Amino acid sequence: MGVEEFTIEGRNAVMEAYRAGKPIDKLFLLDGCQDGPIMSIKREAKKADTFVKYVTKERLDQMSETGKHQGVIAYAAAYTYAEVEDILKAAGDRGEAPFIFLLDNIEDPHNLGAIIRTANLAGAHGVIIPKNRAVGLTAVVAKTSAGALNYTPVARVTNLAQTIEELKKEGLWFVCADMGGTVMYELDLKGPIGLVIGSEGEGVGRLVKERCDMVASIPMQGNIDSLNASVAAGVLAYEIVRQRRL
Amino acid sequence: MGVEEFTIEGRNAVMEAYRAGKPIDKLFLLDGCQDGPIMSIKREAKKADTFVKYVTKERLDQMSETGKHQGVIAYAAAYTYAEVEDILKAAGDRGEAPFIFLLDNIEDPHNLGAIIRTANLAGAHGVIIPKNRAVGLTAVVAKTSAGALNYTPVARVTNLAQTIEELKKEGLWFVCADMGGTVMYELDLKGPIGLVIGSEGEGVGRLVKERCDMVASIPMQGNIDSLNASVAAGVLAYEIVRQRRL
Repeated sequence: MGVEEFTIEGRNAVMEAYRAGKPIDKLFLLDGCQDGPIMSIKREAKKADTFVKYVTKERLDQMSETGKHQGVIAYAAAYTYAEVEDILKAAGDRGEAPFIFLLDNIEDPHNLGAIIRTANLAGAHGVIIPKNRAVGLTAVVAKTSAGALNYTPVARVTNLAQTIEELKKEGLWFVCADMGGTVMYELDLKGPIGLVIGSEGEGVGRLVKERCDMVASIPMQGNIDSLNASVAAGVLAYEIVRQRRL
Repeated sequence: MGVEEFTIEGRNAVMEAYRAGKPIDKLFLLDGCQDGPIMSIKREAKKADTFVKYVTKERLDQMSETGKHQGVIAYAAAYTYAEVEDILKAAGDRGEAPFIFLLDNIEDPHNLGAIIRTANLAGAHGVIIPKNRAVGLTAVVAKTSAGALNYTPVARVTNLAQTIEELKKEGLWFVCADMGGTVMYELDLKGPIGLVIGSEGEGVGRLVKERCDMVASIPMQGNIDSLNASVAAGVLAYEIVRQRRL
């Protein structure tokens, strides 16, 4: 499976993808272009709430694999997204307290895939990712998830902080991974929980962090700064698994 | 940093690299080629205990970045290897019971880099990898280790099973990660320990597994088979960290 299968280039092809309801992750449009077909695509993009980026012709030429982009390149998702409600329902169906991963702008598709894989095996009921900056469900993500994408629902939301507020009303507690927090072994991570993992470079965003009930730190003894994002997610997830088994 | 900086092509260049003592990870030679310069390179490779692979001209042409390989392409290590003794010494210097990662044929450089990064932050004293089939310290490994390669010694050994036997004489216990073992929370992982992680596809080899004192399993609740190798290494390493803190 290659990521190129999911790049859609050209005006008709992108328009058809929208009409067929294919989930488009990101749309790259030629900056300044205002003609009819492009405006139609913009309207579809707005309806579908796609993240749109305006770029130069040089950038599009660089990205293009067919050489015939006509000012439009779309990245289509390899899989369809679930709703947050589906994740809560999955927990209810299994008679378990919800356990959800929330990823604050993971940018590396290999990390996203590995985290979805971990979520599946740690018994989490789903993964929530933000729209816009973060990577979506591309073919690389599907591949590195090792099949987990077929089982673990992934929902995409516009505002992660707001989703946290809504899930708090459902009884969830939120723990985010960050330096300078409480050592994870000393926190109570049982019960309905949302595990918030920050981006590779910047960690958890301020607005999201402010809404978390707990800040958990992985004890670090070495000389460097931080674990790989998917490793950190795995270590924290399994501390939750350990406590849930007690 | 790109991996191409560490590809050495052509007879003179490879011969010079050997003479300068540069660590060569792997050597690709044109199959059937028996002339003088190639035989000299073979002798150097034997002296340095390099893994040699005989390949077709088509393969070499494909690998070549300069187009002038003359039947010889070497992969040079980005970093130099430590000795197993250096790792034990590092533990002694810190007044700690040894904690060593042993990787049984990790093949993905991103995984190797992430594991070295984890080893550093989990407070392990070093990483031992096998020669031959496994990936060595390439530029990709260095990059994904996020600087950890500058601090955490990595030793390369001919026979991992034999190294385990030798380290047992130093008082180390060995735990390997595999399915069907004891749930990791129920094992005593304190004291001088070697953590053995298997390859991505095949897990821990039989000869290595037989020499381990314990088989630890990460509890799996999902629908798929296994965690990503670097995530599994992280989860197990941090169970060791947790127990060591008790």
